[in-house]
Amino acid sequence: MTTSLLVGAGALGSVYAWRLDVTVVCRSNYEDVKRDGFCINSQIFGNSVYHPHRVVRTVNEAVADGQVYDFVIVCTKALPNRGDTSHIIAPAVQDPHTAVMLIQNGIGIEDPYAVRYPNNPIISTISYIDANQPSSGTVRHGTLTLLDMGLFNPTAANYDVKSVQSRVKEICQAWTTSGVETRISDNIQVSRWSKLVWNASFNTVSVVSGGNDTRQMLGSPECTELIRKMMVEVFKAGKAVTGSELTSLNNQTTPEGVIEVTDRLPTSTIPSMLMDFRAKRPLEYAVILRNPIELAKKHGVEVPHLETVYALLPMIEKGYLK
Amino acid sequence: MTTSLLVGAGALGSVYAWRLDVTVVCRSNYEDVKRDGFCINSQIFGNSVYHPHRVVRTVNEAVADGQVYDFVIVCTKALPNRGDTSHIIAPAVQDPHTAVMLIQNGIGIEDPYAVRYPNNPIISTISYIDANQPSSGTVRHGTLTLLDMGLFNPTAANYDVKSVQSRVKEICQAWTTSGVETRISDNIQVSRWSKLVWNASFNTVSVVSGGNDTRQMLGSPECTELIRKMMVEVFKAGKAVTGSELTSLNNQTTPEGVIEVTDRLPTSTIPSMLMDFRAKRPLEYAVILRNPIELAKKHGVEVPHLETVYALLPMIEKGYLK
Repeated sequence: MTTSLLVGAGALGSVYAWRLDVTVVCRSNYEDVKRDGFCINSQIFGNSVYHPHRVVRTVNEAVADGQVYDFVIVCTKALPNRGDTSHIIAPAVQDPHTAVMLIQNGIGIEDPYAVRYPNNPIISTISYIDANQPSSGTVRHGTLTLLDMGLFNPTAANYDVKSVQSRVKEICQAWTTSGVETRISDNIQVSRWSKLVWNASFNTVSVVSGGNDTRQMLGSPECTELIRKMMVEVFKAGKAVTGSELTSLNNQTTPEGVIEVTDRLPTSTIPSMLMDFRAKRPLEYAVILRNPIELAKKHGVEVPHLETVYALLPMIEKGYLK
Repeated sequence: MTTSLLVGAGALGSVYAWRLDVTVVCRSNYEDVKRDGFCINSQIFGNSVYHPHRVVRTVNEAVADGQVYDFVIVCTKALPNRGDTSHIIAPAVQDPHTAVMLIQNGIGIEDPYAVRYPNNPIISTISYIDANQPSSGTVRHGTLTLLDMGLFNPTAANYDVKSVQSRVKEICQAWTTSGVETRISDNIQVSRWSKLVWNASFNTVSVVSGGNDTRQMLGSPECTELIRKMMVEVFKAGKAVTGSELTSLNNQTTPEGVIEVTDRLPTSTIPSMLMDFRAKRPLEYAVILRNPIELAKKHGVEVPHLETVYALLPMIEKGYLK
């Protein structure tokens, strides 16, 4: 059985921690979680108070007893523009054994970890989950659980790829047993860019348009057209960068398809960036737009609509962050 | 001497009304203006309480005594997307005598008036003035006064152009006598597009970036680059539409020049659209972006950065307007 440490127990992190039962690092909310656990209200798993089998204040505390971790699972927001935080997990990353699993959105999230832990496997993972934290310690979860993962840059790996792959299968098996859907992808960057089609457009426009959910955005013809054009740019850039055609949101291969599927959802969606905006938290524009834009240009793809929206987000964030 | 009626006595309108002494239509603030006048605090004209020689509640009231106006001066915001308001002045527009002077920003502002008053001269005018209304009835004015005007579509005129031109000179002379700088342009559309270079970029970005003045915008490299690219698009589109090179903001012929002049101003500028946004008033995006974008595309000029910002403004406005 694999042993894991999870960092970043927000809505997403606490659900995945719960279904795997790992050691959880709780920095700001240690006392609350230690005493009360997480109250999770899940449409598919039911309501439950989840007491992690072990809660620690810091990563150092997690290794103080000599515990070695097979996986360190990072579920924090990806905010490289606010400083490199890859050092936080360092005490628990045993060279070369520990695999670093990054469950984060966006492009280029692996780079700081690959630089800092050159001998460790990095499991690049994206999550399709509908979870949020209406108040501290209380998590609401819908029906989605999918984790899509793959080795980061396996061709350059200086570790035994096969043995890491079998460990990845093992952790996936553990999640599957407790109801979490998992997928192992040969080229995880294609998955990342595919998810980016939605995130780079709906997520970002929901904020720069002043705070609108999917139904409100799709109620405006100009806004819908902007979203479509941004998706065209991501489809093009993703193909140029990964060499593969993207298929986003239930196998849609066109912006029109992605928009239609979104429009047909029974309820409106509040993109995660809009949740961050409303809660006055930092926004993930560096990995959702900045890094993809840089890669697109490097591959000769013009992305003026993405660039325009990207230019606005740091200003908007600055308006409410200290 | 010319006789004029002015509609839209906001900050801008009240300063120009004062320097010409016209009949003023005050719809919402009739009682206040009738009793107290406008308290104008002007850096070049000094402080003064301006009591218009005649204040009326409606345009109908302005013509009830049979008064004929040589000019009807419209200083309202240009908001064609909220409905055609060109009928408001109809009672005072004597066919074909009365000239309609539109002191408004943007492109395409003349069209509804040209359709409704096909036999009347339309004097298309843009204003360079630094005036605002910190509270109702109180106007602050800096040092700028310039009115740049020209006949709209003179080649299609079915009136005597020369006689209208001499009337325009007469009203300009009256303003000049009281310290207002005026200019008569042969091709007023070139002036409009030239002013648009600044308005389509700084004005709109100040709002979609969450509310930032010029200094804040120019403090962000991404934002400055976005403004530059939007200006490139306006310069290109303006040339394609008018057939002339634009020269904006003290004879600047490049986006870099316009940005540099703005950056060197001793104080930061709060664009008028940002003032409207902060006061939760409707935004002039139809004439500042929508109409220019349509014309640009008709002339084969791609304007993706302008289009992106345009798509966001109606959503932002909808967020605070009923």
